[in-house]
Amino acid sequence: MKKVDPQRHAERMAIKQRIMNERIEAADKDQGVLLVLTGPGKGKSSSGFGMLARALGHGMKVGVVQFIKGAFSTGEEAFFRNLPNVEYHVMGEGYTWDTQDRERDVQTAEAAWEVASRMLSDPSFDMVLLDELNIALRYEYLNLDRVLDDLQARPAMQHAIVTGRYAPEALIELADTVTEMKVVKHAFKDQGVRAQKGVEL
Amino acid sequence: MKKVDPQRHAERMAIKQRIMNERIEAADKDQGVLLVLTGPGKGKSSSGFGMLARALGHGMKVGVVQFIKGAFSTGEEAFFRNLPNVEYHVMGEGYTWDTQDRERDVQTAEAAWEVASRMLSDPSFDMVLLDELNIALRYEYLNLDRVLDDLQARPAMQHAIVTGRYAPEALIELADTVTEMKVVKHAFKDQGVRAQKGVEL
Repeated sequence: MKKVDPQRHAERMAIKQRIMNERIEAADKDQGVLLVLTGPGKGKSSSGFGMLARALGHGMKVGVVQFIKGAFSTGEEAFFRNLPNVEYHVMGEGYTWDTQDRERDVQTAEAAWEVASRMLSDPSFDMVLLDELNIALRYEYLNLDRVLDDLQARPAMQHAIVTGRYAPEALIELADTVTEMKVVKHAFKDQGVRAQKGVEL
Repeated sequence: MKKVDPQRHAERMAIKQRIMNERIEAADKDQGVLLVLTGPGKGKSSSGFGMLARALGHGMKVGVVQFIKGAFSTGEEAFFRNLPNVEYHVMGEGYTWDTQDRERDVQTAEAAWEVASRMLSDPSFDMVLLDELNIALRYEYLNLDRVLDDLQARPAMQHAIVTGRYAPEALIELADTVTEMKVVKHAFKDQGVRAQKGVEL
């Protein structure tokens, strides 16, 4: 291990503490946050579900709409669906390359948005997770303006989380916090490892 | 909305389906995956906790070691700690810029690694989440070789997830899947919004 001088370390950390405290003091607004998790890397949906768990840990009420249901049964649905304080809707009928029927995909997405829209206008929901919404927007299954209007008009203290690749530019502009997930390496694609329960499924 | 020809759409999706199926067939290995979630963007820890939820949804047994305990009480701890099939350890005593005592930080990290090491040698754990381990490695509170040896020697079917900024190069090389989270925008830093329950806390 490289040697680190304990005194110098303590000094650096004291400076860092001061900067962190100043930043925390400057950040004094409480508000619902619109968070977008996008990019090709692994972890977008799981991150949304992790925040859901965190919110439930604080006794908050959460809503979930999954816009794309995977071909597989998913662990997150089994886990969250029947918990108290959770309203859970799975609206997609499989990946669009499985349905191969655009009209049906549009109808399914619109029905899903009706549910999302109701949650986004109900202040009793502290957090709403719109899982894989970006995919529905990418394929233009939903009207982007309507989606943005509903997100913007939501209760001031409500958090909304949107996941999926290809977040549209206008959604990124509206959002408060945006993370782009970059693939550095992927076992499934690079190394012939099958999607694993608990990780992908 | 832009018009999309339904027939062309169906054709494109059929091709995509064939490619996806070929890829799934080619990926035929079942194995425990070592996953690293790093980078400055928001969502690393929450993604790890989302995978934990997913694993629990499949009836798997999981272990968690948090290497840095935040200054705040965290929702994920409240949520996961008392669930069945979860062993949960919080080993840090606050951010290092709060303790300002390198010797104590090293001892705390080493004690945390003892717990992690035990989980990583116990095949009854299907998934082990090492939250913010990268921070402990970054400050050289732990011996990197020991950490890599223990990760590599773990049971073949066990998944391990490592989170935190600044993942060391050697860990990235060992890992099967690595995601780097990039900040596109951050409410807390850019817009004076305080860390929010359920999102950050």
